[in-house]
Amino acid sequence: MNDLAIQDRLFPDVTCFGCGPANPDGLRIKSFAASDLVTTARFTPWPQHDNGVGFLNGGIIATLLDCHSGSAAFHLADVRGWGPLPGAAFAYVTAGIDVRYLRPAPLDAEVGLVAEVAEASEDAMTVDVRLEHDGKVRAEASALWKRWRPRA
Amino acid sequence: MNDLAIQDRLFPDVTCFGCGPANPDGLRIKSFAASDLVTTARFTPWPQHDNGVGFLNGGIIATLLDCHSGSAAFHLADVRGWGPLPGAAFAYVTAGIDVRYLRPAPLDAEVGLVAEVAEASEDAMTVDVRLEHDGKVRAEASALWKRWRPRA
Repeated sequence: MNDLAIQDRLFPDVTCFGCGPANPDGLRIKSFAASDLVTTARFTPWPQHDNGVGFLNGGIIATLLDCHSGSAAFHLADVRGWGPLPGAAFAYVTAGIDVRYLRPAPLDAEVGLVAEVAEASEDAMTVDVRLEHDGKVRAEASALWKRWRPRA
Repeated sequence: MNDLAIQDRLFPDVTCFGCGPANPDGLRIKSFAASDLVTTARFTPWPQHDNGVGFLNGGIIATLLDCHSGSAAFHLADVRGWGPLPGAAFAYVTAGIDVRYLRPAPLDAEVGLVAEVAEASEDAMTVDVRLEHDGKVRAEASALWKRWRPRA
């Protein structure tokens, strides 16, 4: 596969808070393709990502799951030739994400992210994504990505 | 009602990234009770909360919806006498949140948040929450909060 992170390869100048390589104050998630359908990432939380009781904040977890699920959608879109349409900055946008918090995730240790495209057409993709640590799934989500079709 | 924000009244020393009054690098959402069941908040995004195309990032939206839904759960819990149990920092924890992104939310303007408890028992609460701007709902979610019961 490619040595470059998906974000650095497909949108190096983007300033998304979660995954934009060009946002100096963002999380700058770096995701890598394990196959056409699966991507992985590692993330080290910042001290301020506290949930108030010393674990990783649920909103930051949702941000990681959302943006990392996007890496799988964008990677598959790139493989299939479903790149951004004229006038669209991205090939797809998130229409929704359903997050389940299963157990606490650490604030003081790296966490792992795994995303897998479960259903894909050019019009929409459903991506299953999970956040893991120490062999246990801490949170999981299903994200719906829809083709960004600029209005004429 | 009380002039103090719910967060400042119920957990002034908490360092949650989204709503902890004591997290100097957090979003410090301030929510106010409109009734026993409804809370409101206003939030001005930071420049780095970009979604990559000049609107508010979906992960930050999820963080706002999650933490603001908590203000409704915590406020009602306080009204009903369902405070934190011995050994628990909070009365309830988020078990899940299902977010729908309906239309772009601005990065350069204040947004409004409205949460309403839809179902409540001492064991669990379901909170409907939305993010609005300029009279239109930009994103909405349903959040499930479960009673934090420390193991013996």
